[in-house]
Amino acid sequence: MTSKVFDLRRKIKRLETLIDTSMVFSGILDIDELLDTVMQKAEEVMEAEASSVFRIDEKRKDLYFITARGEKGKEAKEIRVPMGKGIVGWVAEHGKPLLVPDVRKDRRWFRGVDEKTKWVTRSILAVPLIVKGKVIGVAEVLNKKGDRKFDKGDLELFAALGNQIAIAVENASLYSDLDKLFLSSIRAIVEAVDAKDPYTRGHSGRVVEYALQIGHALTGNKDRLKEIEISAILHDVGKIGIPDKILGKPGRLTRREQKYMERHPEFSAAIVEPIELLKKLRKNILHHHERIDGTGYPNGLLGNRIPLVARIICIADAFDAMTTDRPYRKRKSMRTALRELKRHSGSQFDERLVDIFVTEFANNDFR
Amino acid sequence: MTSKVFDLRRKIKRLETLIDTSMVFSGILDIDELLDTVMQKAEEVMEAEASSVFRIDEKRKDLYFITARGEKGKEAKEIRVPMGKGIVGWVAEHGKPLLVPDVRKDRRWFRGVDEKTKWVTRSILAVPLIVKGKVIGVAEVLNKKGDRKFDKGDLELFAALGNQIAIAVENASLYSDLDKLFLSSIRAIVEAVDAKDPYTRGHSGRVVEYALQIGHALTGNKDRLKEIEISAILHDVGKIGIPDKILGKPGRLTRREQKYMERHPEFSAAIVEPIELLKKLRKNILHHHERIDGTGYPNGLLGNRIPLVARIICIADAFDAMTTDRPYRKRKSMRTALRELKRHSGSQFDERLVDIFVTEFANNDFR
Repeated sequence: MTSKVFDLRRKIKRLETLIDTSMVFSGILDIDELLDTVMQKAEEVMEAEASSVFRIDEKRKDLYFITARGEKGKEAKEIRVPMGKGIVGWVAEHGKPLLVPDVRKDRRWFRGVDEKTKWVTRSILAVPLIVKGKVIGVAEVLNKKGDRKFDKGDLELFAALGNQIAIAVENASLYSDLDKLFLSSIRAIVEAVDAKDPYTRGHSGRVVEYALQIGHALTGNKDRLKEIEISAILHDVGKIGIPDKILGKPGRLTRREQKYMERHPEFSAAIVEPIELLKKLRKNILHHHERIDGTGYPNGLLGNRIPLVARIICIADAFDAMTTDRPYRKRKSMRTALRELKRHSGSQFDERLVDIFVTEFANNDFR
Repeated sequence: MTSKVFDLRRKIKRLETLIDTSMVFSGILDIDELLDTVMQKAEEVMEAEASSVFRIDEKRKDLYFITARGEKGKEAKEIRVPMGKGIVGWVAEHGKPLLVPDVRKDRRWFRGVDEKTKWVTRSILAVPLIVKGKVIGVAEVLNKKGDRKFDKGDLELFAALGNQIAIAVENASLYSDLDKLFLSSIRAIVEAVDAKDPYTRGHSGRVVEYALQIGHALTGNKDRLKEIEISAILHDVGKIGIPDKILGKPGRLTRREQKYMERHPEFSAAIVEPIELLKKLRKNILHHHERIDGTGYPNGLLGNRIPLVARIICIADAFDAMTTDRPYRKRKSMRTALRELKRHSGSQFDERLVDIFVTEFANNDFR
């Protein structure tokens, strides 16, 4: 094989790697997993011992790890690198790639990370992550394996890879910002509804917290946890429709008022109903006052007929109600409230979920 | 140059195109512009006369154009292709690429689109857009230029390009779904607040509509329009904090009640305040009852000191108030309400914005 053909074949190999990785960039949600896959591939092709991806924190004027692969990756992840400091800081500041064959001979080299992690860096190849002309981070590979050095071919490949990584990181951020905006907006409005009755101020936020404690013990599935979170935030939003004189009444409700108050799950469900993407949460919200023994409202559903998320919110809701003051009674202690949950376990509440909540509470003491 | 070297160089050229296009995939918002750029590039490299990208509509079981480039692109865009029908429908159904050197010799060919657009299709290369194993659409290039045919190299290149397009389309959808979820959720909750007073049912939705009419006449900037939309949706959300007996009073308010009612822009602003990404909208909401002559509330701001978006909402808000019934008066006709806006133009309302609104209303008659 002539050397020209050899060179061309090598080039093709590199280009194919780039295209392979570009296929990995599917979905914008699992950015951690995606970056890990891409950087593993980068290490393979460039025969590097480790790699990292950094994001710039505009406010703090420094860089933090979003991926740190290699033996000391875990230790490295806790470190933050000031803008302009070290190779990575230089690349972030100048927006240019940098190939450092021997870090000990480069004055920009910052040994802080090595000292903290007990890792020995020999060589670095670092590229800026640029989106629409703005540097948003840095990717680097460390220590070419054997006695060899990163070369110009590596640099070109990594610079192109950097472009793909930059887009993926930016897309994931945009998505996550919008997700935060969505959650924080409905939360802010619901909190205003809670605050109409001084006794329920902060209620929905706490119910989210308690419900997610149970949720995390049940599943690691992000979609399911998001379902629990949104259902819990919105469970009482229908109280918008309850007249002030019932909602803020400084004393026990009459039977008639109580009946009206008990319509709030229906009102909440009606608000969620027309929202296409929240349709499947409707049942979680509608049934959060059902009881396992079938004597709850609005439908008197029995046991497992009550949606799981509704059973979770029911416990979280009752626990917060017991542990906050009401016009006609003082709040119970956490300990007493947990005992109450257990006392009504199997009749009002789902036994297994109460057990989980009590265990989680004992383990985390999350208040 | 040996033929092997020639082949390798040709391969490199193709791979480089792929990588170039992958760099175009920056940002998930401008999907139309992005697809146009990518397909233009695809046409160049594969020497095609036209190209299209289709998305599958799962509910309707058909495909619709999201991009249609070439002489008859505009005409084509209105057509929908049933699943399984024609080359594109076949590719969508089977999830496999298809190279058709002469469409007249392929039984799958569907001449409907040509008949409608007066375009003459000779050859087609079509690839499925697949995300996580699921076909979400089809991309195609049409009519290789000159007397030549699309070949296996074109097919490979286009299949890889299809992967990148698929990811970009999917990411844009995920983002747009979340955006719709955000807007429809806050809108649903705000509508429940509006509905507390039967006389203001649907008010916020109509204010959004009117405000956007003015907005579209002022700018094509999507971010600015989004700012107007969200500010308008939330302008009255603070009414959550106004007691029922004031909000739903069947008659004129006392001076004291009126004063309390006038605090609703502050309450709305307070709800938005803690939401990081909405902070910059706070002023639009807080000042939607200021008057150009400085006699409005809460701060008596004068003229251009009142944020532009607040001035827009002010007009939209007043127009909807005038054109809907109140307990103590019947609604005015649209025509009378527009005259009222003009009468108070320069004192209560911004002159230029009233002119725009009146003109837009005359042009579109959007009710």
